[in-house]
Amino acid sequence: MKRSIGAKTVLYPTPVLIVGTYDAEGKPNMMAAAWGGICCSRPPCVAVSLRKATYTYGNIVAREAFTLSIPSEAYVEQADYVGLVSGRNEDKFAATGLTPVASNVVDAPYVGEFPFALECRLLHTIEIGLHTQFIGEVLDVKADEDVLDGDRIDIERVRPFLFAPDNGAYYGLGSRLGKAFSIGKKP
Amino acid sequence: MKRSIGAKTVLYPTPVLIVGTYDAEGKPNMMAAAWGGICCSRPPCVAVSLRKATYTYGNIVAREAFTLSIPSEAYVEQADYVGLVSGRNEDKFAATGLTPVASNVVDAPYVGEFPFALECRLLHTIEIGLHTQFIGEVLDVKADEDVLDGDRIDIERVRPFLFAPDNGAYYGLGSRLGKAFSIGKKP
Repeated sequence: MKRSIGAKTVLYPTPVLIVGTYDAEGKPNMMAAAWGGICCSRPPCVAVSLRKATYTYGNIVAREAFTLSIPSEAYVEQADYVGLVSGRNEDKFAATGLTPVASNVVDAPYVGEFPFALECRLLHTIEIGLHTQFIGEVLDVKADEDVLDGDRIDIERVRPFLFAPDNGAYYGLGSRLGKAFSIGKKP
Repeated sequence: MKRSIGAKTVLYPTPVLIVGTYDAEGKPNMMAAAWGGICCSRPPCVAVSLRKATYTYGNIVAREAFTLSIPSEAYVEQADYVGLVSGRNEDKFAATGLTPVASNVVDAPYVGEFPFALECRLLHTIEIGLHTQFIGEVLDVKADEDVLDGDRIDIERVRPFLFAPDNGAYYGLGSRLGKAFSIGKKP
């Protein structure tokens, strides 16, 4: 028997997406976002929701482009930091020592040190409420050779982490539970 | 130096969302979806993307409601199974032995055995391409007492798992890496 805990935003797992953009002066910026994910297979699209108050919001509206870099466990401190301060007041790449790499397909930078990044052109902008959802078409994916198995990105080499809203904490990747779409054949 | 692997939908972590709906005859159905997540804090909203070919798609359009139940590791087989077969041909609750519980706030059922569920009324329908994105306002959250710490849902008691698209596999929850919005204060 479950009990009601009211309307709120809790869902596990929630990703840690580092959104890369350029501002009006061409300064690269990045912020952490957890409200997002994949939203379409063809065309390949991702969604990320941001408050209008963020510096990144204006950058995406102006440039119609963004990247999503996925940090590995080794970068949990830096990823947390870029969710704390605004690019309006700070150069977050300089502060963290991370490297902005210019995408060759969209007008946005990604994080050189993180294992892979999605390069997206803005496709739809959905006003929901406090958050605006940006849907981006993935035009290319860039990945480090050492996380790749052919052209597939191996999660065990990426070592991503997740954000747990109600715990207010980050968690690493656990063990492999089985192959998708086959372990459940005989429930 | 990263290399291009082409445009595709890969992002870690990706959730395992069990979408609960009723069909035209009132038969409860559930399916697994990984393209989704939280998309707004106020009003609290979640997004889930489905292909038009799914049985669930028609149910959501007709009833303007759905639930998202979050399975724990113990139910990885059942969760995988409900992503494999269609509710058009099968009663997936009967096949898995899981219990449909009628929501008291929206016209949709959730999974009784899973630790918590979000009850959503349809707010927006976004046609993207192969997938249609449904944005639902969370009207209430129901949770088992044994995963709650007050009104907060403890991820360590939920033991959720994630889907890794490029690995085609499920992974469990790893260790706690630190408190969000404080470990990164001095990068």
